[in-house]
Amino acid sequence: MSDQSNSINLWMTTSRIETLVDGIFAIAMTLLVLSIGVPTITGNLSETAFQQELWTLWPNILCYALSFWILSGFWRNNHQQFQFIKRSNPTLITITVLWLLFIALMPFSTEIIAEYGGTYFTANVIFQLNLFFAGFIYIINWQYATRRGLLDDDISKATIKMLNISSVILPTLSLIALGLSYYVLAWSSLVYLTHPFLKKILENRYVNNSS
Amino acid sequence: MSDQSNSINLWMTTSRIETLVDGIFAIAMTLLVLSIGVPTITGNLSETAFQQELWTLWPNILCYALSFWILSGFWRNNHQQFQFIKRSNPTLITITVLWLLFIALMPFSTEIIAEYGGTYFTANVIFQLNLFFAGFIYIINWQYATRRGLLDDDISKATIKMLNISSVILPTLSLIALGLSYYVLAWSSLVYLTHPFLKKILENRYVNNSS
Amino acid sequence: MSDQSNSINLWMTTSRIETLVDGIFAIAMTLLVLSIGVPTITGNLSETAFQQELWTLWPNILCYALSFWILSGFWRNNHQQFQFIKRSNPTLITITVLWLLFIALMPFSTEIIAEYGGTYFTANVIFQLNLFFAGFIYIINWQYATRRGLLDDDISKATIKMLNISSVILPTLSLIALGLSYYVLAWSSLVYLTHPFLKKILENRYVNNSS
Amino acid sequence: MSDQSNSINLWMTTSRIETLVDGIFAIAMTLLVLSIGVPTITGNLSETAFQQELWTLWPNILCYALSFWILSGFWRNNHQQFQFIKRSNPTLITITVLWLLFIALMPFSTEIIAEYGGTYFTANVIFQLNLFFAGFIYIINWQYATRRGLLDDDISKATIKMLNISSVILPTLSLIALGLSYYVLAWSSLVYLTHPFLKKILENRYVNNSS
Repeated sequence: MSDQSNSINLWMTTSRIETLVDGIFAIAMTLLVLSIGVPTITGNLSETAFQQELWTLWPNILCYALSFWILSGFWRNNHQQFQFIKRSNPTLITITVLWLLFIALMPFSTEIIAEYGGTYFTANVIFQLNLFFAGFIYIINWQYATRRGLLDDDISKATIKMLNISSVILPTLSLIALGLSYYVLAWSSLVYLTHPFLKKILENRYVNNSS
Repeated sequence: MSDQSNSINLWMTTSRIETLVDGIFAIAMTLLVLSIGVPTITGNLSETAFQQELWTLWPNILCYALSFWILSGFWRNNHQQFQFIKRSNPTLITITVLWLLFIALMPFSTEIIAEYGGTYFTANVIFQLNLFFAGFIYIINWQYATRRGLLDDDISKATIKMLNISSVILPTLSLIALGLSYYVLAWSSLVYLTHPFLKKILENRYVNNSS
Repeated sequence: MSDQSNSINLWMTTSRIETLVDGIFAIAMTLLVLSIGVPTITGNLSETAFQQELWTLWPNILCYALSFWILSGFWRNNHQQFQFIKRSNPTLITITVLWLLFIALMPFSTEIIAEYGGTYFTANVIFQLNLFFAGFIYIINWQYATRRGLLDDDISKATIKMLNISSVILPTLSLIALGLSYYVLAWSSLVYLTHPFLKKILENRYVNNSS
Repeated sequence: MSDQSNSINLWMTTSRIETLVDGIFAIAMTLLVLSIGVPTITGNLSETAFQQELWTLWPNILCYALSFWILSGFWRNNHQQFQFIKRSNPTLITITVLWLLFIALMPFSTEIIAEYGGTYFTANVIFQLNLFFAGFIYIINWQYATRRGLLDDDISKATIKMLNISSVILPTLSLIALGLSYYVLAWSSLVYLTHPFLKKILENRYVNNSS
């Protein structure tokens, strides 16, 4: 019994997948804010002492901003892919659900690295592996859609290749950050800031070569 | 006064029901992450001691992943059903709301089983009953839509039967997990991993027999 | 300068209002679950002692279910109204925002009544007033839309009157519950269970008389 | 390599941006409620003592309502702009993401000002700067869309100018509130209540002059 026969009942348009994806991204990105955590201050501090208390939050705020940025990168990649993925099947949904499982885990990983990433290597391993798995499943998603003919029939080979390359950037950055974190702990996460530039360079190079 | 007369004002398309369903699923699935809870660690631990502290979180992470997976199963079933449910009425909305009440309760039940499911049978009863009621109301939803003529007029009897069978799988697994949990406590929840395979087998068998 | 002149730039279709409304309802309804709160249990309790600990949660679970039910009632009323409200203007959006402000406050009020509604009259006042204001603004919303010509041109006078009556039910129940809570504290909230029946009776009576 | 060449693959309709924006606003506005925080009361208080305990929450409730109101103002501005922004490109998405980063931070800033804004000037600086940056990025968003030709081709110069003025109101109020907070602490936030009136006056004046 092939996927083909299932298709009678189960193939669906991709619109409701996109709704779930957008919903989970919006929530995961907003829940990140809970990882900052307002400190409990009792007694009458001086203005300077209060500032010092708040200052201890800077790793949390930095990690919040960074995770927000990384998640927005995943969301943009997803948009790019689903401009071309026009059909869906049960396996594609399963892959997407597994991917979302790691996306929704990010508020946890972000709090872990914000609290302990400056002190413990293990905290960095958790954060980077979370992102690596999200990125890796994302490659699988695109490869599966490509090979099972779920794409828009008008898509060019050049675009497929460009999106192949595009999907590899984030998990590669995760591995680099994982390696670097052995030496510089949580600072290694700053490599993700290069994502939009790498994406632009690689995609532009491709458009140049192929056109 | 029959439902018919209400229909002048109250029948509505199913699109806004689907919006609420998708929203509540996206949020419930993402809120599950709060059930993991970052441990508060004070003092300077060694890397190994830190790893041991984090290790105590594994039941929480496992339960997060499992509940995420189960909820995605419900969401997929809902998609399947609403491909065919084309009309709505007040009673159908009431049934859906009661169903969502149990879906939105899952972050609570998940935290209960994650924290206490390995020690107390009662914690397992709560988790499994939550899922059983969600699954049971889901059967009622489909039966009601079928009997009150809310389905797409083009739906075949074979498809209706297939979805009948499909809707019974999850609540049956809940009862099995409930029984097993008396002996193996929270490990019994692993039976839910069989859901997509059972669904595929039963649906394929049906397609075979009827075509 | 009348609303009319603003209309060049500001009148908008109601679709994005509905998106925000659906989003805030989905989130408020799901956040209610946080008002239950998993108890922290340390030490090795017997199964019975564990059950007794969990048993203390029953007011929280009851209040969760009740608030979920009430919010779903508001959501349904909103659906009914927006089937007929076809135009929007800045004032209508302001009214909707004020209404949502009280809807989004429900997770707080629910926790207040769940924790203290069985002991303190004031906790009940907060919960019932929150619902009363939500219901009251809702009446204003419908009256404003009716009087400023924002409705579907095909709507019958009978339907407008039916929705007038319909919008009064919830705030009336809030006042009754507020009064009753002086005598029976949080139990007074059970009057909201009559909402769907009252709604059905009043609407059906109307349809009977007018047709 | 200009943006033009990217356009083959990356320009997208603005509908999914609007979905993410609406989602993050709905969640951020609802999460504000967590900044209120139900007090833990033990022992049997008298009704009056209980009221006094709850009374300590008034700054939290006021700040909740104010932030809800301010966020709804941003959301309305966004609606106005996206009625006219008809095309998207990667840079516009980047600007929107940075804007959302400050929007999603509001539950944190709101809790900071609710807890400490009545005592410490620094708490006010955080809250007002958060809003200022959100408002400032918003101006950039509109300027960018205007200059890169992403607007509806039918938009009049008068409307563009009106929206220019419209986008400046909120960040200006933030600077005023920041200055005032040096003298009156958190009370300075009440200047945001003038936002809808200022908006109406400025927009109406413009419509008058230009028509």
